[in-house]
Amino acid sequence: MRFVKGHGTGNDFVIVPDPDGDLDLTPELVRALCDRRTGVGADGVLRMVLAAAEPRAAEPLARPGAARWFMDYRNADGSLAEMCGNGLRVFGRYLVDAGYERPGLIPVLTRAGVRGADVPAEGEVTVEMGPPSVGSPDAVAVTVAGRAFRATQVSMGNPHAVCFADGLSPADLAALDLTRPPDVPSDVFPDGVNVEIVIGAPDAVAMRVYERGVGETLSCGTGACAVAVASATRAGRGPGVAVPVAVPGGLLTVLWDDDQVRLRGPAVLVSDGLLRPDWLAAARRGSEPALAAGSF
Amino acid sequence: MRFVKGHGTGNDFVIVPDPDGDLDLTPELVRALCDRRTGVGADGVLRMVLAAAEPRAAEPLARPGAARWFMDYRNADGSLAEMCGNGLRVFGRYLVDAGYERPGLIPVLTRAGVRGADVPAEGEVTVEMGPPSVGSPDAVAVTVAGRAFRATQVSMGNPHAVCFADGLSPADLAALDLTRPPDVPSDVFPDGVNVEIVIGAPDAVAMRVYERGVGETLSCGTGACAVAVASATRAGRGPGVAVPVAVPGGLLTVLWDDDQVRLRGPAVLVSDGLLRPDWLAAARRGSEPALAAGSF
Repeated sequence: MRFVKGHGTGNDFVIVPDPDGDLDLTPELVRALCDRRTGVGADGVLRMVLAAAEPRAAEPLARPGAARWFMDYRNADGSLAEMCGNGLRVFGRYLVDAGYERPGLIPVLTRAGVRGADVPAEGEVTVEMGPPSVGSPDAVAVTVAGRAFRATQVSMGNPHAVCFADGLSPADLAALDLTRPPDVPSDVFPDGVNVEIVIGAPDAVAMRVYERGVGETLSCGTGACAVAVASATRAGRGPGVAVPVAVPGGLLTVLWDDDQVRLRGPAVLVSDGLLRPDWLAAARRGSEPALAAGSF
Repeated sequence: MRFVKGHGTGNDFVIVPDPDGDLDLTPELVRALCDRRTGVGADGVLRMVLAAAEPRAAEPLARPGAARWFMDYRNADGSLAEMCGNGLRVFGRYLVDAGYERPGLIPVLTRAGVRGADVPAEGEVTVEMGPPSVGSPDAVAVTVAGRAFRATQVSMGNPHAVCFADGLSPADLAALDLTRPPDVPSDVFPDGVNVEIVIGAPDAVAMRVYERGVGETLSCGTGACAVAVASATRAGRGPGVAVPVAVPGGLLTVLWDDDQVRLRGPAVLVSDGLLRPDWLAAARRGSEPALAAGSF
């Protein structure tokens, strides 16, 4: 079983080319692949399959349109995921570098619908992230690491609470303890929320992010988009802006157009790999388990 | 640049076959390879080189003897390391599976001297860990996670403080907070010490380990050996015992013979890989940096 390892601003993926949809990618196999000690190690798996070969995946989606490829994204815990901006950049870079597509705008089917990936022959990739929905600036009270913030609600399909920490220096931001989940009002966010802490708005921003159910991450594509939109809105600027967003894993650029948000950033392919048959057999049996400290 | 990813009880390695010693394995490249987000991801790198091709590595060593292969082990931070029991098992498994050696006892040159790896055609690998040196049982006071323990000093080349937690249940052991370093007397351990917390002695033991300078790990080969020797000594049993040692990453067996300790356990090869040239060039430039949260 072949795979490619890649990352976008430190958000890393195992890409599995499976054009004809032959692979039985079970949750057990996904967990084993993503285990950072006993497997390949990644935040998720991107299975690359011809949209025509995956009728079940396409069924719940409206109009797959001209998308030739389906990005079957799985979280490291084996669950299905709708979309991932950092993942789609890496997926697009792989399609071009492996010769499946020519450089240019490539429509890709995801569980959130068809999203375009604009992949030049080399360099950064830009992906469509859909339309944003912004609430009133600073309308919600959020507590992060014992500090009170006012947050702006933004939906990028998933919910975000963007906290502008105007008084914080870059060193203050870096020192903030994000090991524990922020305290958010459950009536406003009944399904939880991703929380971003932001400095330096509106022309260029730096952020850290606490993703619901995950914890702090090096990069969150929808979070960067939410931060850029909230930042521009708070400054009275509408669509038609390009905002550089520094995340702990690198530098992204968010382009807010009239109809939607696009995310530009690096997409790096690290290595080509081939799983050992013995390991794969054990992983399929579930006998190459995901390990955790204190697992007695 | 080819590599193989493997692990022994969750202690994972990038094996780099470099028989003729052509590779310039810089600390920057090691750090980039071991980065778990932007690289391949591992606890360390095992470069496989013909001992005859690495005269500088062999120079400080007494009698490389019959060892054909040198295991050039590097820590994830790029520093040199002397020996690693889990690493040597994986290294031996690779030598046999890749056809460089036949199954059997294979002498391997390490920075700690020549160590044998007994590699069957399949199954667990047994490696020589050298002679132990044991102090008086329970002679040293150590505090772990706010609890006071009595520790037995053991040297396996590196120092260990083995704490028998006779009153702890497996659930208690699993719940112990090992996020902070244990408190050890600096006059007894001027260079720091690896601390093991042990239950279930003497016939079979379960342990967790805090490695100096690293933190808690899923497995520590010398730690397992130290625990088995301390456990047998405390029970009035001498050399000539085989002790199963459960670590968070799996099950090891320690064989304490008259002259030395041997460590038996799993050695798993996960995948074969090939680094992308662009990534390798960036890693050599240091421009594919190791990332950390809060790196502004």
